[in-house]
Amino acid sequence: MMLFGVATKPDNDWWIGSNIPDTKNLSKYESLMFQGNGYFGIRGTLEENYLNEKRDMFVLGSFDKLQGEATELPNLPDIVNIEIIVNDRVLSLNHGKVTNYQRGLNLKNGEIIRSFDWQVGECKLHFKFQRFVSMHNLHLFVSKVSITPLNNNIRLQIKSGIDGQQTNSGAQHFLEGSKRLFNARFVQMQTQTQESKIKFALTEYHRLFLEDSELTLNPHLIIDRRRVCANYSVDVEKGKLLRFVKYATVFSSKDKDLEVNVSEDSLKELKRVGRLPYQTLLDESSKVWDEKIWQKSMVEISSHNNKPQIAINYARYQLVANMPHDFGMNIGAKGMTGEGYKGHAFWDTEIFMLPFFMFNMPHYAYNLLVYRYLGLIGAKRKAHEGGYKGAQYPWEAAMPTDAESAPLWGSADIITGEPMKILSGDTEQHVTSDVAFGVSQYLVATGDEDFAKRMGYEIILQCAKFWDSRVEWNADKNRYEITDVIGPDEYKEHSSNNAFTNYLAHWCMKKGAEIIIDLRQNNPHDYERLNIKLNLKRLLKDLIIKASKLYVPEPDENGLIPQDDDYLSYKKINVEKYKKADNTSEIFKDFDLKQLDKIQVTKQADVVLLMLLFENDFTRDTIMENWNYYEPKTTHDSSLSYPVHAILANDLGLYDKAFDYFEKSCQTDLGVNMQSSIRGIHMASLAGIWKVVVEGFGGVRIVQSKLKIQPHIPSTWNSLRYSIVWHKTKVHVHVTHTHFSVLTDGKFKFIYHDREYQTDAGEKLIIEL
Amino acid sequence: MMLFGVATKPDNDWWIGSNIPDTKNLSKYESLMFQGNGYFGIRGTLEENYLNEKRDMFVLGSFDKLQGEATELPNLPDIVNIEIIVNDRVLSLNHGKVTNYQRGLNLKNGEIIRSFDWQVGECKLHFKFQRFVSMHNLHLFVSKVSITPLNNNIRLQIKSGIDGQQTNSGAQHFLEGSKRLFNARFVQMQTQTQESKIKFALTEYHRLFLEDSELTLNPHLIIDRRRVCANYSVDVEKGKLLRFVKYATVFSSKDKDLEVNVSEDSLKELKRVGRLPYQTLLDESSKVWDEKIWQKSMVEISSHNNKPQIAINYARYQLVANMPHDFGMNIGAKGMTGEGYKGHAFWDTEIFMLPFFMFNMPHYAYNLLVYRYLGLIGAKRKAHEGGYKGAQYPWEAAMPTDAESAPLWGSADIITGEPMKILSGDTEQHVTSDVAFGVSQYLVATGDEDFAKRMGYEIILQCAKFWDSRVEWNADKNRYEITDVIGPDEYKEHSSNNAFTNYLAHWCMKKGAEIIIDLRQNNPHDYERLNIKLNLKRLLKDLIIKASKLYVPEPDENGLIPQDDDYLSYKKINVEKYKKADNTSEIFKDFDLKQLDKIQVTKQADVVLLMLLFENDFTRDTIMENWNYYEPKTTHDSSLSYPVHAILANDLGLYDKAFDYFEKSCQTDLGVNMQSSIRGIHMASLAGIWKVVVEGFGGVRIVQSKLKIQPHIPSTWNSLRYSIVWHKTKVHVHVTHTHFSVLTDGKFKFIYHDREYQTDAGEKLIIEL
Repeated sequence: MMLFGVATKPDNDWWIGSNIPDTKNLSKYESLMFQGNGYFGIRGTLEENYLNEKRDMFVLGSFDKLQGEATELPNLPDIVNIEIIVNDRVLSLNHGKVTNYQRGLNLKNGEIIRSFDWQVGECKLHFKFQRFVSMHNLHLFVSKVSITPLNNNIRLQIKSGIDGQQTNSGAQHFLEGSKRLFNARFVQMQTQTQESKIKFALTEYHRLFLEDSELTLNPHLIIDRRRVCANYSVDVEKGKLLRFVKYATVFSSKDKDLEVNVSEDSLKELKRVGRLPYQTLLDESSKVWDEKIWQKSMVEISSHNNKPQIAINYARYQLVANMPHDFGMNIGAKGMTGEGYKGHAFWDTEIFMLPFFMFNMPHYAYNLLVYRYLGLIGAKRKAHEGGYKGAQYPWEAAMPTDAESAPLWGSADIITGEPMKILSGDTEQHVTSDVAFGVSQYLVATGDEDFAKRMGYEIILQCAKFWDSRVEWNADKNRYEITDVIGPDEYKEHSSNNAFTNYLAHWCMKKGAEIIIDLRQNNPHDYERLNIKLNLKRLLKDLIIKASKLYVPEPDENGLIPQDDDYLSYKKINVEKYKKADNTSEIFKDFDLKQLDKIQVTKQADVVLLMLLFENDFTRDTIMENWNYYEPKTTHDSSLSYPVHAILANDLGLYDKAFDYFEKSCQTDLGVNMQSSIRGIHMASLAGIWKVVVEGFGGVRIVQSKLKIQPHIPSTWNSLRYSIVWHKTKVHVHVTHTHFSVLTDGKFKFIYHDREYQTDAGEKLIIEL
Repeated sequence: MMLFGVATKPDNDWWIGSNIPDTKNLSKYESLMFQGNGYFGIRGTLEENYLNEKRDMFVLGSFDKLQGEATELPNLPDIVNIEIIVNDRVLSLNHGKVTNYQRGLNLKNGEIIRSFDWQVGECKLHFKFQRFVSMHNLHLFVSKVSITPLNNNIRLQIKSGIDGQQTNSGAQHFLEGSKRLFNARFVQMQTQTQESKIKFALTEYHRLFLEDSELTLNPHLIIDRRRVCANYSVDVEKGKLLRFVKYATVFSSKDKDLEVNVSEDSLKELKRVGRLPYQTLLDESSKVWDEKIWQKSMVEISSHNNKPQIAINYARYQLVANMPHDFGMNIGAKGMTGEGYKGHAFWDTEIFMLPFFMFNMPHYAYNLLVYRYLGLIGAKRKAHEGGYKGAQYPWEAAMPTDAESAPLWGSADIITGEPMKILSGDTEQHVTSDVAFGVSQYLVATGDEDFAKRMGYEIILQCAKFWDSRVEWNADKNRYEITDVIGPDEYKEHSSNNAFTNYLAHWCMKKGAEIIIDLRQNNPHDYERLNIKLNLKRLLKDLIIKASKLYVPEPDENGLIPQDDDYLSYKKINVEKYKKADNTSEIFKDFDLKQLDKIQVTKQADVVLLMLLFENDFTRDTIMENWNYYEPKTTHDSSLSYPVHAILANDLGLYDKAFDYFEKSCQTDLGVNMQSSIRGIHMASLAGIWKVVVEGFGGVRIVQSKLKIQPHIPSTWNSLRYSIVWHKTKVHVHVTHTHFSVLTDGKFKFIYHDREYQTDAGEKLIIEL
């Protein structure tokens, strides 16, 4: 039974929201109701201010680093705020009497609508708030408030402004900005980040309508430190409708579309769009959502209730709202939905998020991989600084040119006062293989040879070169090894020969060798170009030798792949308690990291993930053995774990487990735990929902450079429809319990149970299950 | 009728407070209930958090300058916060039912006590909060919460911590601090200002008592960004009393009493005091208030109600709570009571505040003047930078070594976007004379020859030297002039020969010449010492010539002193509307500064203040003429204006006006305008209350280096008692409507109506009025 912490509607697959004014769980809704367009994004704060709210607005890629802290996305001045005063009473859901409350996010077009009646003293009013971040015009935010006094004439004050007193939890990235007015109506704040010197202009314009007549009121301006606010006063008679529309534009000096400067562009754009009604601008945005996103990433679930459909719609909505509109940026682990992880991107992108984009909107996947190409600068520096060669991608990535953005030192140990070293930036090295793996998958799925030649091969070769320099010779055992790393199971801080890490390093080196051989034979021009950078002949020789001698753990006599050299020798504990805990990190209440290092407990899919990524390298029996061994020992203390387990369980025919893990994936953010998403939602987990539905139940998998479609849908579902793109061919798949059909707009081959099927444009192929 | 915005008690002269939980006017109470000890100070925030609160804590003198902004007192991490959760309901005055509410500041010892009953759901509890900043131990803050569940057993959570997410209205002066625990009980945050690199350690220790038994609970620590919080859980049975005591110490690397470093000192001191009960520590502090402050600054008013007494007690409380405990610091225009004026000191200190300290606790007056001596470094640089000689004191003073702390450029003009030049730092030059005047008054009142020789004469001579270089020769008029200044009437930004400025410059130059002549004759040693620095022979010659030729406006044919060259030629307007306005700056709604420049309207006492400071230089008729002319044209758009008018009105026999202005002085902060003090209370206005009572009604004045006592008390008063110190002699004065008496502990001379009286220790001299 899928339990959601947010309200849903049985007849609307595109709505999440709340039917009560829940000002106690502001953070959950702020994260969940995030609005964004891949250029900028805003948390779903309420217009009026509340205690403990977190007003975050970020422009993607605008990182700034404060002294002694890790670089992060700076929290911009707030443009959402609207203070409404009714006859000297400030509107607040905490005062007066609130009835007929409803607030929802329309997942189809990203519009937030909130409506309620508010009785304060003798006055009762109806309020409706609407707002959106435009998917059509990347710099635009529009907000509308409709107010009707129901039983009395009222005096209304509306204060709407730009509030630069916001911080990143107390850290201020911006210099005190300049505040000014243009044409007596346009309010602008200009400011700049402290270290990265990125300039911003935020401009607001307001229009008021009483019934159908526009009021031509100039605002009374209130200027405070880091804050500027336009103040309007208007009398509204009982029964009349007052509408207040706020238009805001956001420009930064990093914008590629900048014409003159942030101030002029921001104003010019606002003057243009400010003439248009709210609905027109919303329609423009909705059209983009519809044509560019929903038509390209279709997933339709017919089930006994619409929660799975809402979950997949929600996942797709957030993935796109947080997807960089351009290259040079990546998707943070929390996207732009909160301050968690400071906007940094992890392996989450390539291993979890990339497939959604690659199979639906490959140009977005391309953007993400170009980011990694630009990131070679930083990755090469990171390798060099660590004494390695090639490119070592950072565990935490911010600006592509940054080497490593994970903090080197954490806060002081609370007892000893000694600063604690954070190891993941140093030793969570599998991310370099993960990037190469993502590039490889993209190339297979899209056949984008242009990208391969210009960037993709070079990324993989630089990664292979890193591993070539990284592996360590063990003379006693006559093999190469990789010691002292952190694998996906981050409870183990000093793992040696972590199976996942070694497998992927081995794959990466082999893939590098393959590419060199292929280029040498078929593409001498690019071979020469890359040879200058990488000395390919020498590299090929090294890769072949070292890959052949690299220790890659094989199944032992019980069919078990040891997670690392020592795991299987550690003591076992009962982990049920931690699996069931409401909050993550529950295990740290009983054990510290040093103790966990010596216990057979796993944070998240590790060997299990390896078997999903390289399913063809293992027999079904081996996969089952390892599932049976590791799954009970896994706490799922990372949101990345559930979707992997859901897919593998489905593969193994463990259908109840599969559906259970699917539900857990959906509940990571949408579930009843109101604390789970306060610092932002989990982007890789959301991508995981799509993966479970399309790759798991829908059975889509890349196996040996071919597409496999081998679906099995949950028993509570009637059918599943989805579309993907394979080498520019659009593929529609329809799955029921008895058969599945494939309909494409071009020639298309795929594998089902080891047999290859082929179809052509418009031919519907139906396969019995 | 004196209207107060705060509650008072008819039978308690030492209490201000509130009888309702007024969370709408938080700022007013936060400023008014400021607690401090001259080392550090905290706004009177509530323990639990509220929207729109402003948690400010400052350590005096710890200025820091952020890029592009003026230097300011940085807002330290908050140590007041205590979150209380009763069975999962967070304590808030905005929820549940609050009864029997009372919150008050005990002016006698600075303790804030708040008590109320809170009903939430089925539970009713009694709460009592107490806290103080110790006057005995300058680094200590102690807070106590007493909780009794009245009708049910409860589960209580108490979270108390150090919250560094505070900012100066969005500007962050501190680096992310380190947070740690000592001995499992002591919570410490260390941090540092960004530019001035001042280190701070804040340490907290908590004790819990259930009835009479101490609970030995170690806290569960919650660590967040810039925030650390100790969390305690305890079950309390119905009717039992739980007491929670928070001890906190504050140390900075600027502290002269630092032994090892901020961290160790802070911890060591906390371990020492943490053993003592709240009441013992409070008693130690109360004793200092009593012996060192109240016994030395006695003022007792017998009146038909106790509001004048409360006002004078309040004024004295705040003056001392904000008075630097040591030299090297000054009193900001808002003290440490808020972010207004950024902690900067103005002429307010010498002209308004100094007399209170000089006549009661001369060692504090000494501290303030040593600050100006240290400030010669900055003042000489400021003179030099402006092309002048000697010392030009800054209009806004922060660190003594700073030249000028007034921002050079204000925010951009909201229409043109051009940054607006702030002129006061450049041209409000009378502050240099004001400092010299303060030094001179102190020397007369105390006879502190040691200070005179070591610092005082040098300050006055450097100021005189500044004026010597500043005055401009007007060949046409064969005189020196001072053009283009801002006088006390700040509506006039380009005044020439402002009477106040010219008079004080003239006085300063003459005083300089007198000192040189005196030293040459009587103190060759100090003459030689100063001669090396100042070239006294040349300076004396210059001063005599220039002072004799400096234009000092004389009364015209109507007895009027023109405020400046042009004032009397400007048009007149009716200013009644602006005098009556609730808020200051009302006149700017009708006129901008350029227009005000050409209107006969005066912001605050200007010529009128001159006549108070130099009363002997003018006939009573001239003073009356000028009062009649300027008083109706004055908006009192500065809190400095009322007290001056009150005293002068009393001198002129305009007793109703005098009392009216006295009431207005008291109402500046204590009055019903809940917006007047939100960014801090008005220190000079509070000093003005004392001035009106003692210098005005009590008739104490320095005239030609002698003390005049010529009292006249308001008709609603029965009597006035006060004490002052004159040349180390304690003087008690008792004034009624018919006579006044003087009782001293030593030989003492004074003037009454031009006649000199003399008395000796223990002889009570009674004079008929």
